[in-house]
Amino acid sequence: MSNDKARELDAQDPLAGKRSEFLLPDDTIYLDGNSLGPLPRAARDRMQEVVNSQWGNDLIGSWNIHNWIDLPTTVGRKIGRLIGAADGQVICCDSISVNLFKLLSYAMQLNPSRNVILSQSDNFPTDLYVTQGLAGLLGEQRCQLKNVATEKLIEALDESVAVLMLTHVNFRSGAVHDLPKLTSLAQQKGILVVWDLAHSAGALPLDLDSANVDFAVGCGYKYLNGGPGAPAFLYVAKRLQNLANQPLQGWMGDQSPFDFKPDYRPSTGVTQFLCGTSGILSMAALDAALDIFADVDMQAISQKSRELSDFFIGSLAQYPALEELILVSPSDPQLRGSQLAYSHPDAYAICQTLIDLGVIVDFRAPDIIRFGFTPLYTSFLDVWTAAQKLNMIVDSKLYMHAKYQTRLKVT
Amino acid sequence: MSNDKARELDAQDPLAGKRSEFLLPDDTIYLDGNSLGPLPRAARDRMQEVVNSQWGNDLIGSWNIHNWIDLPTTVGRKIGRLIGAADGQVICCDSISVNLFKLLSYAMQLNPSRNVILSQSDNFPTDLYVTQGLAGLLGEQRCQLKNVATEKLIEALDESVAVLMLTHVNFRSGAVHDLPKLTSLAQQKGILVVWDLAHSAGALPLDLDSANVDFAVGCGYKYLNGGPGAPAFLYVAKRLQNLANQPLQGWMGDQSPFDFKPDYRPSTGVTQFLCGTSGILSMAALDAALDIFADVDMQAISQKSRELSDFFIGSLAQYPALEELILVSPSDPQLRGSQLAYSHPDAYAICQTLIDLGVIVDFRAPDIIRFGFTPLYTSFLDVWTAAQKLNMIVDSKLYMHAKYQTRLKVT
Repeated sequence: MSNDKARELDAQDPLAGKRSEFLLPDDTIYLDGNSLGPLPRAARDRMQEVVNSQWGNDLIGSWNIHNWIDLPTTVGRKIGRLIGAADGQVICCDSISVNLFKLLSYAMQLNPSRNVILSQSDNFPTDLYVTQGLAGLLGEQRCQLKNVATEKLIEALDESVAVLMLTHVNFRSGAVHDLPKLTSLAQQKGILVVWDLAHSAGALPLDLDSANVDFAVGCGYKYLNGGPGAPAFLYVAKRLQNLANQPLQGWMGDQSPFDFKPDYRPSTGVTQFLCGTSGILSMAALDAALDIFADVDMQAISQKSRELSDFFIGSLAQYPALEELILVSPSDPQLRGSQLAYSHPDAYAICQTLIDLGVIVDFRAPDIIRFGFTPLYTSFLDVWTAAQKLNMIVDSKLYMHAKYQTRLKVT
Repeated sequence: MSNDKARELDAQDPLAGKRSEFLLPDDTIYLDGNSLGPLPRAARDRMQEVVNSQWGNDLIGSWNIHNWIDLPTTVGRKIGRLIGAADGQVICCDSISVNLFKLLSYAMQLNPSRNVILSQSDNFPTDLYVTQGLAGLLGEQRCQLKNVATEKLIEALDESVAVLMLTHVNFRSGAVHDLPKLTSLAQQKGILVVWDLAHSAGALPLDLDSANVDFAVGCGYKYLNGGPGAPAFLYVAKRLQNLANQPLQGWMGDQSPFDFKPDYRPSTGVTQFLCGTSGILSMAALDAALDIFADVDMQAISQKSRELSDFFIGSLAQYPALEELILVSPSDPQLRGSQLAYSHPDAYAICQTLIDLGVIVDFRAPDIIRFGFTPLYTSFLDVWTAAQKLNMIVDSKLYMHAKYQTRLKVT
């Protein structure tokens, strides 16, 4: 690994041209697209249009003129193409947390003789919290959360389990579950499966339909670059639609919201999972951001992601000081998502120092530094430079400076 | 009523200067702010800043640098001041539908020996749908919706009722409930009250704390001018906080979301009602829009609203052709919100014709034309001109032209 090698790889990179579709600040190496994707030019332009011309000029008429009313479906269709979902199964709406509540409640109704939602204690917390909230509301008789360690998952798939809820790529370690295999094993036991694709959609090739996935949720603001707090998405396989009612029955999930009648009649299809009015400004940014993916292949993205992360691992290996950092992610690139996690007792301070030197990464409690590799805008030279800076910081113990120790609200 | 009189009233109007804080298209009279508030200059500027400078330049760091993480509380505090809520009781988040689900579930837990949620069949549909969704999830034993006619509400307040859920200003007719009285009568029977303030916040003076209100929700995109699908808000009286767990337990409602631990511990205070990550683009627009209210008194807004609507009623009375339109709103301005509803068999076509002629109003099925009077940017001359055009349309039967009969998706 070397500066020259990095430049050579960049010169050969078929995705190199995509970087110009993003507005990244100068002198910044952004390795945190797994937390918040950067600003796409198209999203910036769309926001101007939506604010000034649509909201400002066409006002309420924009619901029809600019098809605001169909945005959840329009955006859902674009996301569907990235995750291997045929049309009519994905909508964009609400947050992952809210969408999980809808899907878990719905799935539990389809498996009424069972009461366990099976997951892992190192799942992303909001997934567990939402399940605990549903369990609290329904009572233990009807719903309870059972967490097991990753290696115990398969043996825990028994006839008490109504729903298996997993996050495809672990938010800390980046470890990837075998989605087709776990889906199939669970289904053989009569278990419905809900996948959280927060760290997968836009990062890894996915084929939900081929894997016969039941339900999924995912995030708009990470690899899909939809902007801070962009709305989430949900997927419901066609065969499972309209078999029950999801409980967050808002007017946008009704068959004919503008009839204003007192009794809810769920819309047919996945739009039944809509609830209230969509946040159009946020959703429009995501809609524009998704167009970046129109001419790229998820396989190409995934391949470059593996190359970037391998290049990073190789670069770090050249520096004795960096032996202090322990790779927590699987070393086999096929078994991890588009990120690398390293543990270090001073992970927090090292993160802050890297950020101060223009390499944006993030910290995950208690001792993890996450490096996100986002092939649409990250170059091999970025990765090489990040490795150099990391070595300098750790070797010189620069991170021990007091200013890097102060904890921020959001870390 | 006359053109001269309108100009005279505008000249005396203490709120006249506020219009310049909005970007309204030329040649448009916007009487639909009760559906979607127009674009404030401050919101336009903030969107540019949030997109380009915050998201674009400061990226993930903006959660701390620009305090994105506190936006639900910051915006909640601003809304609190408009509705008579002391700090620490209002947050901005999600949609009205989602927030109602949280509050109804929570309130039902505080009244566990009762199972009825009392409302009205002409309440805004999403409020009823959400209640039906909760009832479906919990089962009839634990939760059922009972709708009664307005005039039967008081006698229906009995010991079977756990929660009274009403919309303060009726979305169709604009009729206003006596909020302090109904709150007090319900509480005397041990009933908790949830008010929907969708058509009240920013339109009418409210004093939730003085009225000892228990819970409320409201809308960000109508009178608060927060943009299409702006996030909603919710109010939980201090005395009722932390007595139960609301079921939509997302990580943002946890005490320490960035500890990433597997068990949910609700945040103390109203932030327990947060769920997933906030849509920052949408919420930032609302935050900026709210500053318009910083130097105005809700009493002044309400007084001008009554004057505008009375001026409109008086203007219409001068035209014999307009006798076809029946005022559905209460004729006493003290008993209605900031809108007037008229019924007409051809209401839909009349609406479309008015819109075509630059007077933006809206239609509510089956036969209602709604005229919204929003004192921050509507002038008496606007109202006078709208009345002239309405008379021309009805008198000439211009609305019978085929092009005005085609129904749009969103009406």
